Amino acid sequence: MDERVREHAETLVDWSARIEAGDDVVMSVAEDAHDLGVAVAEALGERGANVTTLYGSDELSRAYLKGNERADWGFDSDPAVDRALFEAADAYLRLGGGRNTTATADVDRETRRAYAKARTGVREARMDTDWVSTVHPTRSLAQQAGMAYEEYRDFVYDAVCRDWEALADEMSQMKEVLDAGDEIRIVTERDDAPDTDVTMSIAGRTAVNSAASVAYDSHNLPSGEVFTAPYDATGEAFFDVPMTIDATRVRNVRLVFEEGEVVDFAAETGEEALASVLDTDPGARRLGELGIGMNRGIDRFTDSILFDEKMGDTIHLAVGRAYDACLPDGETENDSAVHVDMISDVSERSRLTVDGDVVQRNGRFWWEDGFES
Amino acid sequence: MDERVREHAETLVDWSARIEAGDDVVMSVAEDAHDLGVAVAEALGERGANVTTLYGSDELSRAYLKGNERADWGFDSDPAVDRALFEAADAYLRLGGGRNTTATADVDRETRRAYAKARTGVREARMDTDWVSTVHPTRSLAQQAGMAYEEYRDFVYDAVCRDWEALADEMSQMKEVLDAGDEIRIVTERDDAPDTDVTMSIAGRTAVNSAASVAYDSHNLPSGEVFTAPYDATGEAFFDVPMTIDATRVRNVRLVFEEGEVVDFAAETGEEALASVLDTDPGARRLGELGIGMNRGIDRFTDSILFDEKMGDTIHLAVGRAYDACLPDGETENDSAVHVDMISDVSERSRLTVDGDVVQRNGRFWWEDGFES
Repeated sequence: MDERVREHAETLVDWSARIEAGDDVVMSVAEDAHDLGVAVAEALGERGANVTTLYGSDELSRAYLKGNERADWGFDSDPAVDRALFEAADAYLRLGGGRNTTATADVDRETRRAYAKARTGVREARMDTDWVSTVHPTRSLAQQAGMAYEEYRDFVYDAVCRDWEALADEMSQMKEVLDAGDEIRIVTERDDAPDTDVTMSIAGRTAVNSAASVAYDSHNLPSGEVFTAPYDATGEAFFDVPMTIDATRVRNVRLVFEEGEVVDFAAETGEEALASVLDTDPGARRLGELGIGMNRGIDRFTDSILFDEKMGDTIHLAVGRAYDACLPDGETENDSAVHVDMISDVSERSRLTVDGDVVQRNGRFWWEDGFES
Repeated sequence: MDERVREHAETLVDWSARIEAGDDVVMSVAEDAHDLGVAVAEALGERGANVTTLYGSDELSRAYLKGNERADWGFDSDPAVDRALFEAADAYLRLGGGRNTTATADVDRETRRAYAKARTGVREARMDTDWVSTVHPTRSLAQQAGMAYEEYRDFVYDAVCRDWEALADEMSQMKEVLDAGDEIRIVTERDDAPDTDVTMSIAGRTAVNSAASVAYDSHNLPSGEVFTAPYDATGEAFFDVPMTIDATRVRNVRLVFEEGEVVDFAAETGEEALASVLDTDPGARRLGELGIGMNRGIDRFTDSILFDEKMGDTIHLAVGRAYDACLPDGETENDSAVHVDMISDVSERSRLTVDGDVVQRNGRFWWEDGFES
């Protein structure tokens, strides 16, 4: 076994999920994530945890959804086993890495939406655990990234096997500014793309220093972003980084906000998939997240949100669900069955201001060399 | 997809597990049972059931056990997630078919025994569901059977895709005799093997017409045996069909019974593995099952208990746990953490008598041509 698989597993179990003896862990292993599953299982055994392993197969999901669709059953909104499973779990480790990133492409969009809606309760129970999502580098993901398999493995391990403690310290500076701020404005004025000029409130919200550990309310490995839950957005935003929604490629999204809601939208390709997301429920038209990518170990876009949104020199906005960690106690808005991130490259002719102070210009932060306020 | 995979899945879901709309189903998919998993998931979707899919990987189990063993933790006797999972389930479908039947060969026997003991409660919760165990034909199982892959697939589907209703009718004759009987005696007098002459009580016990369906208290697909839970065994029994216990090949087992207990034993190979089984707990020295193989679709031994014990012209005895279905209400003996079947070829010079009446001679039953009482 590649020694980096073991390092990945130990980072996941120890740094990210903080597993301790006696913890009840649910792990989900995708079709081709077997090797990482073996390394994680070994680490869990060594830590004295219990483990229940799910098979996270997109091909099985497709078959189930198609079968249900054919018989027109609809979906149980309170599936007893899944609820009991996650309610009893201390931690949930999702090991992605299937054989085909478009394995569910021929499932009716309405079916997928109905399934996602029906599983709101299960998702909530899962998110009440110390959950962490990661991926094992597979040939399918390499293909999606447009990379050779060996090259892609290097890419993944460069992003995952980092000095997380040092990055957490650096990112804490951005968290402090966002926590103290009331209003955030993002402006880009590139020649080759429509302008962005969007203003949002962040008053009363708490930013997450997403350092790839539940100890930081951070649930992705790799991570490396600071994010918060904005509201009352006004203005226009353009997202030039391509993404995949429900197996559909979506490019060059433009969103127009008024009083916190998306009132107009367009996409160069995949506009129908975007529309379907925005129509899921009322919360899907409001912002759930503003994130600032700060992981400079990620050096290119690979059509995987887990990596793309963490890349340095990017910011992203998500429509849909906000993370509880960003909200005041007891506050549940923005609630939604979806959470879809959209990314902008801010490496050139951009500025991010908090209450009028420029904190990032052309991708550089105020504490970095090359930043000019 | 081979059309027989779909037939296998539908037999499992409809005939075996009797899945209905709204049922909460837990399915476990082994490493290489993916294709059967897809077909079963589709059938479950069509029936309107909920499904939670576990990854039944021996390689992950090995890694977990080795990790735990290295750190010397021991095992949690009440793992919360697994218990909650099976307590909430209506049915459990186990789809075997890994990549290496000896994948756990280097796990310490004590570790495996401790793990099996600790999981008694989980196993009981699982067996309280409508559980069914089957296998997808894999290269690893073909290899264990000493067969080509294509040949092995034919073998499996010949055993699985049968007229179960007709076989159930035939087997019901044997169940009636065993239910009415008090004492059963098995005698073999072959020139090439030690004699068997063992007598057991079956008074008050209920035989199971194991027709591969939970509607018959039968939990294997394929099945095709009639079994009961004998007690007070006396005599000697010889088992000439090789088997694998804890990844160890065990051949030519001889057991000596007195007052229901194994008081002496021997095996030509694998005696240590046999000893380990018998030492698990007091119940492991007593019989849990007498079974009479009646599936003539199975035409050879393949070193898989799921098939071997169902083959026509064989009988088997199991040490360890008895199935509740055979016991009077409230009776829990014979209780044990193990259940290990041992098989004899009774095609020649054998007789099975119930209260003195010969019901099977040289493999033929009293209702068959070629039987001479």
